[in-house]
Amino acid sequence: MYQDHFSLSASSPAGTAPPAAPAPLRVGLLGLGTVGSGTYAVLQRNAALIAARAGRRIEVRMVAVRNLARARTVLGEEPGTPLLTDDPQALVCSPEVDVVVEVMGGTGLARSLVLQAIAHGKHVVTANKALLAEHGAEIFAAAQARGVVVAYEGAVAVSIPIIKALREGLTANRIEWVAGIINGTSNFILSAMRERGLGFAAALAEAQALGYAEADPVFDVQGTDAAHKLSLLAANAFGTLSQYPQVQVQGITAVDAADVAFAEQLGYRLKLLGIAKRHGTGLELRVHPTLLPESHLLAQVHGSMNAVMVKSDAAGITLYYGAGAGAEQTGSAVIADLVDLARSASLAPAQRVPALGFASGVQPGLPVVGADDVESAFYVRLDLSRPDATVPRVLQQLAADGVQVQRMAPHPHPSDPELRCLVLLTAPLALRTLRPALQAVEAWPTVLGYASVLRVESLA
Amino acid sequence: MYQDHFSLSASSPAGTAPPAAPAPLRVGLLGLGTVGSGTYAVLQRNAALIAARAGRRIEVRMVAVRNLARARTVLGEEPGTPLLTDDPQALVCSPEVDVVVEVMGGTGLARSLVLQAIAHGKHVVTANKALLAEHGAEIFAAAQARGVVVAYEGAVAVSIPIIKALREGLTANRIEWVAGIINGTSNFILSAMRERGLGFAAALAEAQALGYAEADPVFDVQGTDAAHKLSLLAANAFGTLSQYPQVQVQGITAVDAADVAFAEQLGYRLKLLGIAKRHGTGLELRVHPTLLPESHLLAQVHGSMNAVMVKSDAAGITLYYGAGAGAEQTGSAVIADLVDLARSASLAPAQRVPALGFASGVQPGLPVVGADDVESAFYVRLDLSRPDATVPRVLQQLAADGVQVQRMAPHPHPSDPELRCLVLLTAPLALRTLRPALQAVEAWPTVLGYASVLRVESLA
Repeated sequence: MYQDHFSLSASSPAGTAPPAAPAPLRVGLLGLGTVGSGTYAVLQRNAALIAARAGRRIEVRMVAVRNLARARTVLGEEPGTPLLTDDPQALVCSPEVDVVVEVMGGTGLARSLVLQAIAHGKHVVTANKALLAEHGAEIFAAAQARGVVVAYEGAVAVSIPIIKALREGLTANRIEWVAGIINGTSNFILSAMRERGLGFAAALAEAQALGYAEADPVFDVQGTDAAHKLSLLAANAFGTLSQYPQVQVQGITAVDAADVAFAEQLGYRLKLLGIAKRHGTGLELRVHPTLLPESHLLAQVHGSMNAVMVKSDAAGITLYYGAGAGAEQTGSAVIADLVDLARSASLAPAQRVPALGFASGVQPGLPVVGADDVESAFYVRLDLSRPDATVPRVLQQLAADGVQVQRMAPHPHPSDPELRCLVLLTAPLALRTLRPALQAVEAWPTVLGYASVLRVESLA
Repeated sequence: MYQDHFSLSASSPAGTAPPAAPAPLRVGLLGLGTVGSGTYAVLQRNAALIAARAGRRIEVRMVAVRNLARARTVLGEEPGTPLLTDDPQALVCSPEVDVVVEVMGGTGLARSLVLQAIAHGKHVVTANKALLAEHGAEIFAAAQARGVVVAYEGAVAVSIPIIKALREGLTANRIEWVAGIINGTSNFILSAMRERGLGFAAALAEAQALGYAEADPVFDVQGTDAAHKLSLLAANAFGTLSQYPQVQVQGITAVDAADVAFAEQLGYRLKLLGIAKRHGTGLELRVHPTLLPESHLLAQVHGSMNAVMVKSDAAGITLYYGAGAGAEQTGSAVIADLVDLARSASLAPAQRVPALGFASGVQPGLPVVGADDVESAFYVRLDLSRPDATVPRVLQQLAADGVQVQRMAPHPHPSDPELRCLVLLTAPLALRTLRPALQAVEAWPTVLGYASVLRVESLA
């Protein structure tokens, strides 16, 4: 629900009957890559349906691209085809455009063009999570000052209307935590490692061959993309600006196939989760590989699919599942934002759903708890020589340091027949407590460093 | 997003700045049972949060109940406590009320009061699926004529914002099908039968003892409640009025514990599903026990939880999961509708999300395909004497009648040592083809009628 400052000559004054054919919502598209093409295709294919639902037509009037020739093959040559330009500045200030859809990606030119569009009184719809996570404060402040909307349903878990669910569906609730599988590439890789016993590198190569991972997958596998999305989820859940720089991020590049298999034998699955959780008066904001009980619904999310679980005081646990990437999947979310815009032509600014935070304002941020103070159960794998002598000493040392071991499973080492792996599951404790205990053990000559420390969450 | 005809003396004319403290949205509550109490409790506990999100306060000004003494213990005696009355007619025409929340249940007095509220220009929020499924055409027509909103997020899968997801989140999409576990009592019973091998009667008794089933569970276990909800889901997905009378309904009362176990051994789980699906130019609308592959996400929905899966052309498959009952869970949905109302004070009627169907109007209904013409795979269990001679004849007869058997599993009969159970999974076919084939087989003296015929769905 958004207010409108469109220059619609045909718009009706409040209180009179609407005209028979309301003026269309005129869209300028910045970019015609995968997401731009998908958005355009859905707008064309379902034009009548979308107009029927929105109450007026949504028309792409202008498209700005770098490569005009390639764009012409996407758009075709029929009458009504949008004006094509390689000058995005012309688009963001065009009087023919009510709303700018930014689907070009990146945080440099995209930031500049979005700010120019806002300055020219255009509403903005974007699926650019990096842009909003890193420059959201600047962009939302500019939009608020100019009285325009910045909408971004497609920026998080694209096909899933999770921003709307958090801001409108769960609006009665005090949210306790949000936890999600919000990077499809990482989930595809972890699923392949578990299902087919692949190592990280082989699973990544498969993801790249199948088009689930970019040629440069660093943003995905190092957790950056998930952290961008988590910061937007948290902002909506807790009424803050994006606190992206404070998200504690650990990706999946160091995940060992042996730990995936050992976890499986204990009844757990490893998922890259983004978790935002109230912690006293502050927040936990973290992205890391996480063991979940195999019966947990998030453990059933396979391949490149995404899902977000929310725990809130009145609704309890709810979950939202769908594709986390894809041309038309993202287009679906972008168009949902456009329809909201098309409808809400006469809402006053105070009646809008705020882009972030609350109608009464947004807190810049809440204190973020350091990783050392975040409590959880832990999965710990130690690689040992002389296990018969070492295991009892390990357990005694951990007990002395306040680490309660709840389960223990010995395994052959996956590559070195001289070694044994000792897998431990601890009771919930702070990393602050676990770390010195492990450092003490690690110093022994029969312990070869601690191979793996992974958080275990119940999320119930 | 709704238009408003509130008689708010403090409301600002369009175009001027909103007042510092906008007038509250004044609520009249019809009923203070489980849902009414839950709604009231959440509105009180999260009042500041809800006001911050809605842009103004939401205040319960009046409550109508049958038992005043009991209601007083719920409401307390503090200043600001709403006016309590046992005259619901006084509430629905009170000038102190902008929106009537109907949480009394039933389709008699509730219908009459909702229509009176509409006639007095009140918006209505209800969680009453039976009322809308059976009298929706009348109620929505009255609301449209009077220019008020009827909102009902709490009527389907209460804690899950599925109505909003269908109408707004997926608005860009042509929806292919909606399938859901939308009766928590039935899902609890089927879960208990599977997990603990209980028969239907024992599982129902357990559900009643634990409060998951009503003393009179007939609406739940016979599928009526699911059919009510399915008709509302379908109306939103396909742009029609409720076609509740045309829903093909089969409940779970005849489900045999042996079939739950046999299905499990074949890798399937039995769930009561509501399915609404495009079929040519018409619709399939059906509620029945259904076998799903055990890895299917809907097969992971246990106990009294609900989930709705949607397949649509752009977003692909999305799923929404949460509690299907509960006082505060329903309150969460009711309040989400109230916040939408509180926000959208100045929207023109044409800009609203329509209560059902499209902004441009609603089709009264689509042709509903008869059960005989709905294709699916089938699970068939035949109870046989002299199986060695009978099984080959059964397979030959079915083949001759065009029924392709894809898997076969013999089992001992659960109670009669003289009998064998033959479980068959067919390829997809219409019931029209399967029925005469089974009738032929059933006529043989060594076949004791066909014990069970269940649809098998892949929903992918």
